[in-house]
Amino acid sequence: MKILVLNSGSSSIKFKLFDNEVVKASGLIEKIGENGSRVELKNTLTGEEFEKKVDIKNHEEGLKITNELFKESGILTDLSELDGCGHRIVHGGKELSEHCLIDDKVLEQIDKVSIFAPLHNPANLAGIKTMIKAAPNVKNVAVFDTAFHSQMPEFASMYALPYEYYEKYNIKKYGFHGTSHAYVSKKAASFLNKDYNSFNAISAHLGNGASVCAIENGKSVDTSMGFTPLEGLIMGTRCGDIDAAILPFIAQTQNLSMQEIDTLVNKKSGVYGICGFNDFRDIENQIEKGDKRAELALNMFCYRLIKYIGSYLAILPRTDALIFTGGIGENGNLVRKLVCEKLSHLGFELDEKLNDERSKKERDISKNSSKIKILVIPTDEELEITKITQKLITK
Amino acid sequence: MKILVLNSGSSSIKFKLFDNEVVKASGLIEKIGENGSRVELKNTLTGEEFEKKVDIKNHEEGLKITNELFKESGILTDLSELDGCGHRIVHGGKELSEHCLIDDKVLEQIDKVSIFAPLHNPANLAGIKTMIKAAPNVKNVAVFDTAFHSQMPEFASMYALPYEYYEKYNIKKYGFHGTSHAYVSKKAASFLNKDYNSFNAISAHLGNGASVCAIENGKSVDTSMGFTPLEGLIMGTRCGDIDAAILPFIAQTQNLSMQEIDTLVNKKSGVYGICGFNDFRDIENQIEKGDKRAELALNMFCYRLIKYIGSYLAILPRTDALIFTGGIGENGNLVRKLVCEKLSHLGFELDEKLNDERSKKERDISKNSSKIKILVIPTDEELEITKITQKLITK
Repeated sequence: MKILVLNSGSSSIKFKLFDNEVVKASGLIEKIGENGSRVELKNTLTGEEFEKKVDIKNHEEGLKITNELFKESGILTDLSELDGCGHRIVHGGKELSEHCLIDDKVLEQIDKVSIFAPLHNPANLAGIKTMIKAAPNVKNVAVFDTAFHSQMPEFASMYALPYEYYEKYNIKKYGFHGTSHAYVSKKAASFLNKDYNSFNAISAHLGNGASVCAIENGKSVDTSMGFTPLEGLIMGTRCGDIDAAILPFIAQTQNLSMQEIDTLVNKKSGVYGICGFNDFRDIENQIEKGDKRAELALNMFCYRLIKYIGSYLAILPRTDALIFTGGIGENGNLVRKLVCEKLSHLGFELDEKLNDERSKKERDISKNSSKIKILVIPTDEELEITKITQKLITK
Repeated sequence: MKILVLNSGSSSIKFKLFDNEVVKASGLIEKIGENGSRVELKNTLTGEEFEKKVDIKNHEEGLKITNELFKESGILTDLSELDGCGHRIVHGGKELSEHCLIDDKVLEQIDKVSIFAPLHNPANLAGIKTMIKAAPNVKNVAVFDTAFHSQMPEFASMYALPYEYYEKYNIKKYGFHGTSHAYVSKKAASFLNKDYNSFNAISAHLGNGASVCAIENGKSVDTSMGFTPLEGLIMGTRCGDIDAAILPFIAQTQNLSMQEIDTLVNKKSGVYGICGFNDFRDIENQIEKGDKRAELALNMFCYRLIKYIGSYLAILPRTDALIFTGGIGENGNLVRKLVCEKLSHLGFELDEKLNDERSKKERDISKNSSKIKILVIPTDEELEITKITQKLITK
């Protein structure tokens, strides 16, 4: 079954082509509507790379050129040959709480929820519309970052604001990275030979965006991101949890608009705000050079994560595994060490040797005696989207 | 040693008179500058009550009338007879990190920090100035709600905002309720016959304002309130932790000013925002009547607290006791039960019978087998302020 996975941004589309869950090709349409726009395509089986540098005015043109590259490379005769197309959608809002086949009503809802994710949902929507135009016969599936968290208990997802803000504006905790948390937790259960429906885990997706998720009996019961992806862990450039009263204080003392405040907390904060770097390899290098701010940023990042793990240990009646995933989770042995060391008194025993081994595979990095297993599970959101798409188009 | 403790608000002053750490009198000057202003005074040894209903234009007049009542009641000949006066000050900012004798420099600093606590510090300052005028010979001591938390490690107190916001504006986590957390944790250590300098505890001060504090070796290492008292637990009318991005979202969709947003999150949110009640006795009554919103509010309140306790369990290498204090902490057996039940898998064993007994005394409500002791310690911030004042004026 041939499935194309699209991750559409405002000026780019990332894509991956799967054939029976094996990646056949991957690529990128970038700088749409800007100077230097181009499409790149890689045949992941042969390693061959293809590129077209042309003017790309909009998403539609981008997909057209991609289709041409598919033909030229011999990877695909035409987009109409696909069995389905899976679209990564950031925000499903309150109504779209499950992944689903896309119809007009779904399109309308995704558009409606754009108010919650003004940078992402309109771009995601453009990707879907482009695909419908390019290959009207192909079934499209919406896979939401929020869906995995939609079953959170009310006492965990509600904010203590006047109740009418929930009723009128649907303000509640939605959570994100759901596709990743779902994928790695399922993988972790099968890796440990446990039944997913009775598997409890804490999943830490640590990339430039980062979130933690508490999973009970195979379901997300809490997660650190909230109404938007700002809440929770300290991230590359996002501040995560802060006293909300700081925003009006800064707005007043600095005379900043709400738009400027939004940019401040989302793009100029996080570990970058503290030390000027948001790549953890740079941060580690700086620490070696004696950079105290880089050390502070790393310690703050780990400390916040430790607190979240503690809070999820408290709400889960039993925790089978702690899962690390995402760029930092998969490769950051220092972060994993600092976090697990501090948690050792709660039943986490890291095997330092296993932790230091580099690998692309799912693995257990805890000692045999560790009460709670510590796993590294490389995430694969596109594969998860493919699986969901296959399931829904054959339903 | 005669010590007067003043807690000055914008239109009221609460006071307590101690003689060698025993309360001799307590009272209230209220509606300063408003209609219906009055002073009430109670001789706590005899039970006698005194009252004056007169026009009180300002704090100075209020204290003058209080002095007259002191004379008439025979409790005190004159304010000048006092050995010292302890003032509760909400915010010490970055500079005033320890309780101290008040001089001009301290007055200036308290004024400077008013930008952080615009409702409280100016009122606290008015109280001090009034006292200096009324009894120039009496030594005044400033006791800060923030002081107990001033030794928090940097990685716990810093927000992940651009570092310059800390350098320029001193934006960091200050924490509040410090006098209460210090008092009950010291009491708890002595109750358990432990040396305070090696005592670890989690202290939950639960009143209309509420905060949790992690205490390691007798020092606050983290607390749930932050730059302002808004952050952290769900409170009577404050939302506590929320995704900060919700504020600009509401400001835009509702066209609210920052001042209105401030009122919304501080005065109209919390359990009151969810169910319309902020007194937990009312909430429990409503639950009995089948009020689902009241039940939700209670569950949200407890859930947030459980998560904080979990996060502090993680950061403390060992936890000796969980302390409940404040109106809800001391009297709310249902809250204590719901919280401790959920934490039972982490070594908290509540003795339900002991939990249900009403008492004004410090007490252990956990089973003998409980790994972590669960204590109820009635707080007494005024007594703590008295002790601090005595210590500083005799130094």
